[in-house]
Amino acid sequence: MKNKIFIVGMGPGKEEMLTGEAIGALEASDVIVGYHVYLDLLGERFSEKEFLTTPMRQEEQRCRMCFEEAQKGKTVSMICSGDAGVYGMASLMYQVGKEYPACELFVIPGITAALSGAAVLGAPLTHDFCVISLSDLLTPWEKIEKRLAMAAQGDFAMAIYNPSSHKRRDYLQKACDILLGYIEPERPCGYVENIGRQDTKATICTLGELRNREVNMFTTVFIGNATTEVIGDKLVTRRGYHIERKDD
Amino acid sequence: MKNKIFIVGMGPGKEEMLTGEAIGALEASDVIVGYHVYLDLLGERFSEKEFLTTPMRQEEQRCRMCFEEAQKGKTVSMICSGDAGVYGMASLMYQVGKEYPACELFVIPGITAALSGAAVLGAPLTHDFCVISLSDLLTPWEKIEKRLAMAAQGDFAMAIYNPSSHKRRDYLQKACDILLGYIEPERPCGYVENIGRQDTKATICTLGELRNREVNMFTTVFIGNATTEVIGDKLVTRRGYHIERKDD
Repeated sequence: MKNKIFIVGMGPGKEEMLTGEAIGALEASDVIVGYHVYLDLLGERFSEKEFLTTPMRQEEQRCRMCFEEAQKGKTVSMICSGDAGVYGMASLMYQVGKEYPACELFVIPGITAALSGAAVLGAPLTHDFCVISLSDLLTPWEKIEKRLAMAAQGDFAMAIYNPSSHKRRDYLQKACDILLGYIEPERPCGYVENIGRQDTKATICTLGELRNREVNMFTTVFIGNATTEVIGDKLVTRRGYHIERKDD
Repeated sequence: MKNKIFIVGMGPGKEEMLTGEAIGALEASDVIVGYHVYLDLLGERFSEKEFLTTPMRQEEQRCRMCFEEAQKGKTVSMICSGDAGVYGMASLMYQVGKEYPACELFVIPGITAALSGAAVLGAPLTHDFCVISLSDLLTPWEKIEKRLAMAAQGDFAMAIYNPSSHKRRDYLQKACDILLGYIEPERPCGYVENIGRQDTKATICTLGELRNREVNMFTTVFIGNATTEVIGDKLVTRRGYHIERKDD
């Protein structure tokens, strides 16, 4: 029998945003490995577990830690904020896992910020949408620019992750400038800070206004499509276009 | 105080895929409204609740049913498979809700098939991705074609919903033909049938092979990006491109 490692999507933070499956995986684990901020969010419930961590940038070492513990016969969970796959650790775990054939990986999905942020704003991602990260840490900026242009031309609604950091203060502005090449400045947009935390804050604005907003790194930004409107204080994208409804 | 209506994303089906927040909303409700297939999935746990439904196509009537019940002073949950927003009922609830100002809506996110299907396949949606539905019931087919072309040119990984139905047997083939205009036929892809049910089945194939596969309407299809590879029996997209890692 192979040693089990769960890669667990924890959702945005609050314990009630975890699925039952995620809680079951954590409960079944002897060791929980993760970035310390996420470990802290778990709170008291799993306080009898062994916790292991590495500094922020050492993701590959964190993966190896999981496999080394599993090879000792322990059941291990690697925790990720949001989903386990979307900008999460599942991919790197499979890469590193090539060297550890005695271990078997199980990916437990979680509520990624596109979904949790959209729920706070209303329903901006009703229809086809794109998820795009502005972080150029591992991706050439030109590729990000191309994706923004393609998403705008395809009339996709968008969820934008990592819109800002200490060294990337003007990236959201640069991104908006690309979008404004295809989309009218009046297009309804929104952003949510600290999703799933005590101080969640949602803001609705136009794309033109968004260009000049400064957001922090704990923010997810939403761009409406051609059908998106503001209803009350909510951002709502229609579930289709005005065509005669066809029989399916 | 306003009457509360929760719009609840139930995830792919199994109760363990619901979040604690979703279970809490259902438990707090007097009435649960939904399409009967989703009501059946809820099983025994909520059997003391009042259940209301409408035939499949009468979504607007189903929304009105929620507001009418809420106006009687009842707490109501509208349930949706997957997420409450993504191809879900949240948008239509806000539209219809313009006529019912005494009611307040709360969107509870859920695990959409892009996330639950990706977890079964491995990690195909690690990086930027698009979600596209092939249903042209409410969207002109030309718009869907344009989105597929833009997603391919942007090197997005993709999750494709509603790839087939009784009257749209050749839509996945048509979609693959568009993608093959930009993507090599060897591109790793995959699809998952009956996600989150007892008979979940995952298949990995190339884009060229996918073109000739027949899939049923309970299938979600995944298209890899330029970095996607098959590791063992899993579909894995890298979390970035081969560039020198920048300090953030």
